[in-house]
Amino acid sequence: MPHPNDPTLRSFISVAATSDFPIQNLPYGVFSANDGLAPRVGVAIGDDVLDLWQLAQDCRFDIDEPAVFAASSLNPFMALGPKVWSKTRARISELLRHDNPELRDNEKLRKRTLVPMADVRLHLPFTVAGYTDFYSSKEHATNVGVMFRGKDNALQPNWLHMPIGYNGRASTVVVSGTPVRRPCGQLKPPSVDLPSFGPCKRLDFELEMGVVVGQPSAIGERLTEQQAEAMIFGFVILNDWSARDIQQWEYVPLGPFQAKAFATSISPWIVTREALDPFRLHGPKQDPEPLAYLRQTQPNNYDMHLDVALHAGAKNAAADISSTNFKYMYWSSVQQLVHHASSGCAMNVGDLLGSGTISGPEKDQRGSLLEISWNGTEPVELPSGVKRTFLEDGDSLIMRGWCQGDGYRVGFGEVEGTITPAV
Amino acid sequence: MPHPNDPTLRSFISVAATSDFPIQNLPYGVFSANDGLAPRVGVAIGDDVLDLWQLAQDCRFDIDEPAVFAASSLNPFMALGPKVWSKTRARISELLRHDNPELRDNEKLRKRTLVPMADVRLHLPFTVAGYTDFYSSKEHATNVGVMFRGKDNALQPNWLHMPIGYNGRASTVVVSGTPVRRPCGQLKPPSVDLPSFGPCKRLDFELEMGVVVGQPSAIGERLTEQQAEAMIFGFVILNDWSARDIQQWEYVPLGPFQAKAFATSISPWIVTREALDPFRLHGPKQDPEPLAYLRQTQPNNYDMHLDVALHAGAKNAAADISSTNFKYMYWSSVQQLVHHASSGCAMNVGDLLGSGTISGPEKDQRGSLLEISWNGTEPVELPSGVKRTFLEDGDSLIMRGWCQGDGYRVGFGEVEGTITPAV
Repeated sequence: MPHPNDPTLRSFISVAATSDFPIQNLPYGVFSANDGLAPRVGVAIGDDVLDLWQLAQDCRFDIDEPAVFAASSLNPFMALGPKVWSKTRARISELLRHDNPELRDNEKLRKRTLVPMADVRLHLPFTVAGYTDFYSSKEHATNVGVMFRGKDNALQPNWLHMPIGYNGRASTVVVSGTPVRRPCGQLKPPSVDLPSFGPCKRLDFELEMGVVVGQPSAIGERLTEQQAEAMIFGFVILNDWSARDIQQWEYVPLGPFQAKAFATSISPWIVTREALDPFRLHGPKQDPEPLAYLRQTQPNNYDMHLDVALHAGAKNAAADISSTNFKYMYWSSVQQLVHHASSGCAMNVGDLLGSGTISGPEKDQRGSLLEISWNGTEPVELPSGVKRTFLEDGDSLIMRGWCQGDGYRVGFGEVEGTITPAV
Repeated sequence: MPHPNDPTLRSFISVAATSDFPIQNLPYGVFSANDGLAPRVGVAIGDDVLDLWQLAQDCRFDIDEPAVFAASSLNPFMALGPKVWSKTRARISELLRHDNPELRDNEKLRKRTLVPMADVRLHLPFTVAGYTDFYSSKEHATNVGVMFRGKDNALQPNWLHMPIGYNGRASTVVVSGTPVRRPCGQLKPPSVDLPSFGPCKRLDFELEMGVVVGQPSAIGERLTEQQAEAMIFGFVILNDWSARDIQQWEYVPLGPFQAKAFATSISPWIVTREALDPFRLHGPKQDPEPLAYLRQTQPNNYDMHLDVALHAGAKNAAADISSTNFKYMYWSSVQQLVHHASSGCAMNVGDLLGSGTISGPEKDQRGSLLEISWNGTEPVELPSGVKRTFLEDGDSLIMRGWCQGDGYRVGFGEVEGTITPAV
């Protein structure tokens, strides 16, 4: 049987070359349709969603607990572990292949299991156990450092020695399409003496990838590179919405709190680690060499294109404002996970690890408006003539990401969020 | 019917005046006994645990879903809301009163529902949805500030304007009695140029109270003082174990991460907000006056004694090293919760809010070894002659807390943790 990542595979479902969801991808999500059934697990294929719960009723799946597909989150499936993840993906791939009549020639089964994506609602794909946000792009950390501390002290002394991160707020992770209300908070621009409470005036996005942890580790246990890698179920695109003015006043000395607690948007589709395997490459050279526990023997970065478009008000068309690549990250997701557990911190099924804002070396590869507008001093001008320093009410922000194969893409769909006014 | 807080109430179960668990308390926990039954909800009374699940089989409880008492966490019960919390406590109080024959004279029922505390195992009382740690003692923040930045810049500019807090790690909240493994991490004392990875050398405790949030708030919603108060189910004693050397190197600019991720211990008993009501008082005067959203109309602090004892190695007796009071906190738990939701951050049933280290104005009222030993420069000498700056392997740390009524105490039992060597 060919490997599900085989670039020559074709499905009996026609998939455009620019679709994010060819048979080489098979990302998992949670969907509901207009059939009165509860949200359940599905897989994206072309313009359709494959209903795994319905499919498991009729097709051998070699999985002890097909009820995991009836759950409204992927956590029960993820808890079954990497062997089941692989086996399930291989079986789905087999069922969707152009040369397998099992599903292809069973019209009744096709009708019951394939739902047009246009007709479904996509839900948050997993229950977020804990949300941790890292800060692992050297370009991003340098940009922010230069802005606030000058060129000579851009990177903090610890930054090159470990993947710096902090605990985020899991309760407000939302799925793409969820409106984002402009937060209120304490604001104290340097020009005034006392803080006031009101709507954020410097609302920003941060382009990130999110690692979805699919296996737990015990309290008091550290992880090797191999163990950490095996715990990663997949990836989502992640928008770490940020209120820059709230952040600036609150974050010393304990880090960001309410500035990033109001919303974090993720893609509805989790692309599996296995599907991304063909796109792995080595990250930038790490100098100084990391301490032994953080050393890597494998290529743990990914060649993944990332685009950000801004839809500045309903009247204007969406326009690209950044185009970068996940490969630039200095610290890999595996290093982040190893470091996260290095104190003996227990990891749980459903933990979400944000990569940190992904900026590239070029000016048009910056992953936040803070950097794009250089702290509000250089407004970005869109093709419509509209200018922006930070996000305004009614603006929509759209992120896309995909790995380019030979004639196909392995992608995530989009992460969209529209700003609604503060109340 | 008398109110369950009535100081004149007595139970048919004899309770010593120094017991933490008189009829005026009735704290909730999760326990298992040697009866083969799964962990379930109980209430502490004197030296016994009252099995609510067994009790609900026989005694009218006016609660729609007595199955919540069969759960291995208090979350399902908490989710039922403040009216049910009050009604349930009143009914338990009624059943335990010396003048009510219902349980008192039913030997069979007593045997089935009252288990000696010595015979039970106490579990983590609730599933921690999110853990947030504040920094709300002015004395603690000032001590730390003086140590690291000098007297003139002790408090950061934002500290007097809002309850500073950060997201902690929920996955490693453990119940009293759980051994705490010394964490490893990156250490870079100022005297060396490069970090190394190894066991923490400056392991500390932090004496805190934890608020247990029992009701949710929606994303995008702010809270008033009254709404926040009504969401608080109760309190636990909390030890926010801290690796000072890991913290010192990692915490700029995003706050503590692995330094506080390895363990947080809480008391097995949640004392309800209602039981603590008689001990409320106004906190210290807040100057400058807080912004409108943080203003308080009620006394939201508590007159609660807090003791810390150090058992320095198995050979020596435990000795008190701090004795302070929860009343000193500058920012109240209600203000913390209001601020937490101020950006529209959704709160969940089971959220845990650490108060921050509770230090008082006097030297013997300091809530951490960092302060007691003044950053390791003034070792504390115990009656046995043993000295400590930070915790050593084999040391046990014991916290106790209670409110003193007239002839009775409303207390929490203890929070104990013993340090085991790093691996």
